[in-house]
Amino acid sequence: MPTEEELTRLVKRELGADSGFEDAETVPFSGKQLVASTDMLSEGDDFPPGMPYDAIGWNAVAANLSDIAAAGAKPLGVLMAWGVPRVLPESGVQKIAKGMAACARAHHTRVLGGDMNESESIVLTGTAFGIARYPLRRTGARPGDLLAVTGRLGASAAGYLIYWSKREKKTQLEQKMLHRFNFPLARTKLMAELNSRGLVRAATDISDGLSTSVHNLCRESGTGALVEYVGIPMFEGFEEYCRKENRMPLELLNLSADYEILAAFQQESFLAARNIARRLGGELHEIGTVLKKDVLLEKEGRIAPLPRKGFAHFE
Amino acid sequence: MPTEEELTRLVKRELGADSGFEDAETVPFSGKQLVASTDMLSEGDDFPPGMPYDAIGWNAVAANLSDIAAAGAKPLGVLMAWGVPRVLPESGVQKIAKGMAACARAHHTRVLGGDMNESESIVLTGTAFGIARYPLRRTGARPGDLLAVTGRLGASAAGYLIYWSKREKKTQLEQKMLHRFNFPLARTKLMAELNSRGLVRAATDISDGLSTSVHNLCRESGTGALVEYVGIPMFEGFEEYCRKENRMPLELLNLSADYEILAAFQQESFLAARNIARRLGGELHEIGTVLKKDVLLEKEGRIAPLPRKGFAHFE
Repeated sequence: MPTEEELTRLVKRELGADSGFEDAETVPFSGKQLVASTDMLSEGDDFPPGMPYDAIGWNAVAANLSDIAAAGAKPLGVLMAWGVPRVLPESGVQKIAKGMAACARAHHTRVLGGDMNESESIVLTGTAFGIARYPLRRTGARPGDLLAVTGRLGASAAGYLIYWSKREKKTQLEQKMLHRFNFPLARTKLMAELNSRGLVRAATDISDGLSTSVHNLCRESGTGALVEYVGIPMFEGFEEYCRKENRMPLELLNLSADYEILAAFQQESFLAARNIARRLGGELHEIGTVLKKDVLLEKEGRIAPLPRKGFAHFE
Repeated sequence: MPTEEELTRLVKRELGADSGFEDAETVPFSGKQLVASTDMLSEGDDFPPGMPYDAIGWNAVAANLSDIAAAGAKPLGVLMAWGVPRVLPESGVQKIAKGMAACARAHHTRVLGGDMNESESIVLTGTAFGIARYPLRRTGARPGDLLAVTGRLGASAAGYLIYWSKREKKTQLEQKMLHRFNFPLARTKLMAELNSRGLVRAATDISDGLSTSVHNLCRESGTGALVEYVGIPMFEGFEEYCRKENRMPLELLNLSADYEILAAFQQESFLAARNIARRLGGELHEIGTVLKKDVLLEKEGRIAPLPRKGFAHFE
């Protein structure tokens, strides 16, 4: 079976080289750029067993808004195509819708409408669109740039594992990470603001995993990178959780990552960008630098290649 | 089990009264309106057994462009989220993509990109974008207006039944209807042109069935309608097929309808509209008039209520 990436390459060949399967696509529109992104989420892969209905709805919207954030665009709206099994109670449908509406509101946008269908299991395909004068891409990073992420990482992967463990009793820490997994915030406001000021060189959403995203950004920019392990901002309690579960934090960050953005900044822009993030109540954590080539990880004084191990379907 | 319509009402209540689940949604954008529509299509319901891969890809794009046509908008692009089963051969994925690209080209637009996922069976969620100064809605019809459709009807329903019959041998007529079912054309060009000239009062795509669409347009416009059976333009050979299969044409037109548009015109605009259609190589067939109330059908001199029998999921 080919991997998701191989199938995507195959499809892109047919659609034309300028078609994209990454973060968001752009179309010129009245002197600006329309930015649009679509994501299909489904039971199991994206909605683990036991995930509450409102969290399912929230995540379906957040996943798409995160791609709009990666483009540094202002959200205009979200469409949602529903595939719903016959056995899903009406109250479940209602709670999913409530979660969608709440997530859109939290990002100052709306679910405009959609399409209702019957399916074997829950499938939600969202499409978000936004506007930007100059949408961010993955291609603009240059050697010497700083790499930063927009928030603390780990709650998503931990939340995912906690659901799959199906343990009834959850510690307070587990509950906290589950809450973050259920109701993540996409960084639309911060990224639109930074982009409108021309402070960002390149960006990508890291929901496919941290190191996959570093590799993607480097490949598209034609660069390498050095990630400093000590710089990676971990969600409070995440490392403790990893120790208890006998997992490596970086391994989990590549399993399922948070709706945070990885962005490259010119050295001289970074302080201004971080000040803006703070003013907006957001975060910007430096995790490394862009190199000419090689994607490396520095951990405890040792430097080694950073493996491209993320989450890909079909694997 | 609630019907698709009941679930949609439930969801709309949560999303806000101005959310829509019909044809396309609109958002103001730089002095114009961005029009967007999403449709989830899946094996069985939308892609019957034996449907070729390129036709599957073509239909997934056409379904969305038809909603853009209903809004009288010019297409800007299409996004496609894929759910693909492991057992689908690579060549199948490639053919689906080829069909998508060909359909987009035939409508002077592009598949911009999308999202690749694994799923139990083929699920394709498309989202199409377009632009219009004044997007058409279902709400503008007024008593005295003429109702017209943009092409001959029946090939879609017949094609659907022919696939499900799973008969190996197909007549020439069946092959012709299958071809039209496989590669339908959405009426984007005609509807954008008519709308830009202000000639259309209200419109809807009739892919949910002819009489459902008449009922929807009337309900949203607060009107009734009289449909004249003799005016309904049937695909060549469709009535012969119905006789042979012992089915009523109108029953089949409500089962699965073609990607044609039902539109309301002021009496004095209709001739101009039809001339434009002819000049563009298109069609516009008068099928009735808008009334103050009651949705009626006239057939062989008798007038009776037109039942709202269309295709709805969950039924």
